[in-house]
Amino acid sequence: MSKSIEFNKYDDFSSWYHSILAKTNIIDKRYPVKGMNVFTPNGWFLHQKIMDIIEQQWTLQNIQKVQFPLVIPKLYLTKEAEHVEGFTPEVFWLQNENKEDSNECALRPTSETAMYSMFSLWLKSMSYTELPLKVHQTCAVYRNETKDTMPLIRAREIHWNEVHTCHSTKIEAIENLEQAWVAYNSLLDCIGVYGLRLIRPVWDKFAGAEYTEVMDCVLPSGKVLQTVGAHYLGQKFAKAFDVSFTNNLNQNQLSYMTCYGISTRVLACVISAHSDSNGLVLPLALAKYYVVIIPANNKKEVLDKCVQLSNTINVPNFIDYNDKGIGDKHYYWELMGVPFRVIIGDKEVKTNNIQFINRIDRSRITVENIDNVTNLMSSVNKLLFDYDLCLKNNSKDFLYSKVVTCHTIEEIGIILNESGGFIRIPYYSDKEDGKEGEKMIKELFGAEIRGFVRNEVISDEICAITGKTATCWAYIAKSY
Amino acid sequence: MSKSIEFNKYDDFSSWYHSILAKTNIIDKRYPVKGMNVFTPNGWFLHQKIMDIIEQQWTLQNIQKVQFPLVIPKLYLTKEAEHVEGFTPEVFWLQNENKEDSNECALRPTSETAMYSMFSLWLKSMSYTELPLKVHQTCAVYRNETKDTMPLIRAREIHWNEVHTCHSTKIEAIENLEQAWVAYNSLLDCIGVYGLRLIRPVWDKFAGAEYTEVMDCVLPSGKVLQTVGAHYLGQKFAKAFDVSFTNNLNQNQLSYMTCYGISTRVLACVISAHSDSNGLVLPLALAKYYVVIIPANNKKEVLDKCVQLSNTINVPNFIDYNDKGIGDKHYYWELMGVPFRVIIGDKEVKTNNIQFINRIDRSRITVENIDNVTNLMSSVNKLLFDYDLCLKNNSKDFLYSKVVTCHTIEEIGIILNESGGFIRIPYYSDKEDGKEGEKMIKELFGAEIRGFVRNEVISDEICAITGKTATCWAYIAKSY
Repeated sequence: MSKSIEFNKYDDFSSWYHSILAKTNIIDKRYPVKGMNVFTPNGWFLHQKIMDIIEQQWTLQNIQKVQFPLVIPKLYLTKEAEHVEGFTPEVFWLQNENKEDSNECALRPTSETAMYSMFSLWLKSMSYTELPLKVHQTCAVYRNETKDTMPLIRAREIHWNEVHTCHSTKIEAIENLEQAWVAYNSLLDCIGVYGLRLIRPVWDKFAGAEYTEVMDCVLPSGKVLQTVGAHYLGQKFAKAFDVSFTNNLNQNQLSYMTCYGISTRVLACVISAHSDSNGLVLPLALAKYYVVIIPANNKKEVLDKCVQLSNTINVPNFIDYNDKGIGDKHYYWELMGVPFRVIIGDKEVKTNNIQFINRIDRSRITVENIDNVTNLMSSVNKLLFDYDLCLKNNSKDFLYSKVVTCHTIEEIGIILNESGGFIRIPYYSDKEDGKEGEKMIKELFGAEIRGFVRNEVISDEICAITGKTATCWAYIAKSY
Repeated sequence: MSKSIEFNKYDDFSSWYHSILAKTNIIDKRYPVKGMNVFTPNGWFLHQKIMDIIEQQWTLQNIQKVQFPLVIPKLYLTKEAEHVEGFTPEVFWLQNENKEDSNECALRPTSETAMYSMFSLWLKSMSYTELPLKVHQTCAVYRNETKDTMPLIRAREIHWNEVHTCHSTKIEAIENLEQAWVAYNSLLDCIGVYGLRLIRPVWDKFAGAEYTEVMDCVLPSGKVLQTVGAHYLGQKFAKAFDVSFTNNLNQNQLSYMTCYGISTRVLACVISAHSDSNGLVLPLALAKYYVVIIPANNKKEVLDKCVQLSNTINVPNFIDYNDKGIGDKHYYWELMGVPFRVIIGDKEVKTNNIQFINRIDRSRITVENIDNVTNLMSSVNKLLFDYDLCLKNNSKDFLYSKVVTCHTIEEIGIILNESGGFIRIPYYSDKEDGKEGEKMIKELFGAEIRGFVRNEVISDEICAITGKTATCWAYIAKSY
């Protein structure tokens, strides 16, 4: 049987990726503005599901949902010096023909400057007892990306969810970032996406942050992708925007701030992690239907049995009454990533035994005596549990296989060429003076230092790049 | 007791409106870009609730949710001649410094031109059996409004939901518009917002439409506001964008198209319709909590009774354990529009009778023996039913009182000055030649013809403006 997607994701990721996005109704990239794509119904459904999961987490953490304007006055955008340096080159500006509005305005490349100008007003009337202020918004941001764009991964219109918080103490701000990681890890585990949590090199942190921590995931190509970005802003932005409150000594005090976000890259990761050349494979958390029931013919007893099963299994399911042939239906639902397919025909009506066909490997699991509801339910629950577990284990195994420790430039070159992923190397410094070594890494391999694992200990190692005494383990990779 | 909002909505609507939006955490209008406001948590919550309700309707009608880019190439925007004439003056254009992208681009003022260029590609491969194509999106559109802006009502950043459909026959397209009205009426009835469904004068229809039908609501000021817009596009856009499919004769045929949408104006209407000088009054469909339970003290038996009530009433509720005084809590929850407040103290614990304080009129309804769950539930259900009914009836009564038939210019002047609303007048033409009379209406009253009621019959009447024989009833009003 020919494959739905004619490419293999490990051999030719880019072709496989573009093909699956088009064929499974995720993205139509024919829209004629560079880096801006149409989300067709499946794509928008999946992205919204991911956003829903993270928004539920924010609700549990008492983070309030707001919506700020898209348009930011230049005056605001340029208030924080490092931030403006980092973002100005890629900002979209609005034409300004209207004399009455003399301010230049940009489309938000991210919302710090829009929000913090208002936070300044809001905190003015607040005392420390009313903090923290925690808000999030789901929106799109715009960046005039000059690099090659890639749907969901590198776009000029980026759909995302961002959180911004103000705290009265540094400790509380940093603890809040840990809560963010709890939420993100919960989301990512729930959809079977795994990566390394890294502290970005100081020379590569978010523009205006004290430090940046990320989750980098390895795609099937072996290149890595930043999936979560979480930033401790300290008091830098608070100073630039005067985000200050009345502290317990009745004094005016700058707040400690954090921000973090996830975008459609999570969708890119989840599709890439599980899907194959037969189409999508979706974790249960993102599947519209867990089971599709296909009647083998139109006999009343067959259709009745389909309805009976549909009503009994108590998980999202769909009976495909369409006129198409069974083969076409199999092919279609496999392509669309429904976890289990069931065909019901004369034999199933007679025996009361049915087969669940697993999307992952097409294995068939027989459930006997489906009239026994307790038996059916427990069998289905086990199937579903094992299904998600299998996706998660495969995804974890892939990650583990893609983190390789090397000690020499030769080893690094071999691994990067052969399998990609993260190379863990002894490195001489995670401080500003580590930047020099990264230049060599870029020149030698076209790779970069993605970051460092918090509190990872090193002893008696020599830097794989410079030959100096190593002070840390660095994780290097080629990236999107 | 002083009022939370120091203005009366009928006497000084504008001041009342701005005050309630600020005090109830709906909108912060201090953001320094004209016509672009910050939705603070309550405002975004309420707008999203409204969007959720209409999106559920679209799901039931098999309208698929998509997301198109914000940015539209000028080439697309200018394809349909009437459309470009209608919208170009108020379009925001992006600066274009990048030589590689030679196309000028705009922020969408509405999404027809972005969508229909893609519909053209999608329908190319479709036969008539696969139509209709029906999609919707929830997004923001941008219009460089030169008139005075007003939060939720007239903005430069408009959050809305828009639907776009393609059909193989005119009849199906027009029937689809009726389905849209079923959905919109269901939404508006559910939140107690009523207005007149009018066919806009031909000289005032949506740019590029065959005809435009709207719902206009009367605000407490007596000025009217378009709340729904629904447009029959015929084949005009289909021709401009080549949105064509293969018909049953195996020929290429232009599709018949419709589009319709609602924006944050629905939120403006619902707030204005029900709320008062004590703050918000919300219909149940938009209320986060139906009941707030306020313990009168911190005794264990009082708190236990609060929890018991909270667990039993089976509707969204909240126990306010806050340290503030009971008066402050009353005042706060009244301001925020919670339908019912309950105070539980020693007396309530002893008697098992509690009073529900109705947000609408502060009336107190006693429910006896709350340990009797059946009794409690049926009493609460009746309270809630009556509450929503009261809001709806008041809102309908207000609308009816604001549609007045006049026969002379003198009468029109008096009514427009005294109470505003709609004036129904005999009018000489709903065709293009009716435009002349509207000029007079504008000059005389600063009002306009809002439209005509479909199939309304007139006989033996003289046009109130021109003295000619009347052919229709026209509805005139001052508007936002």
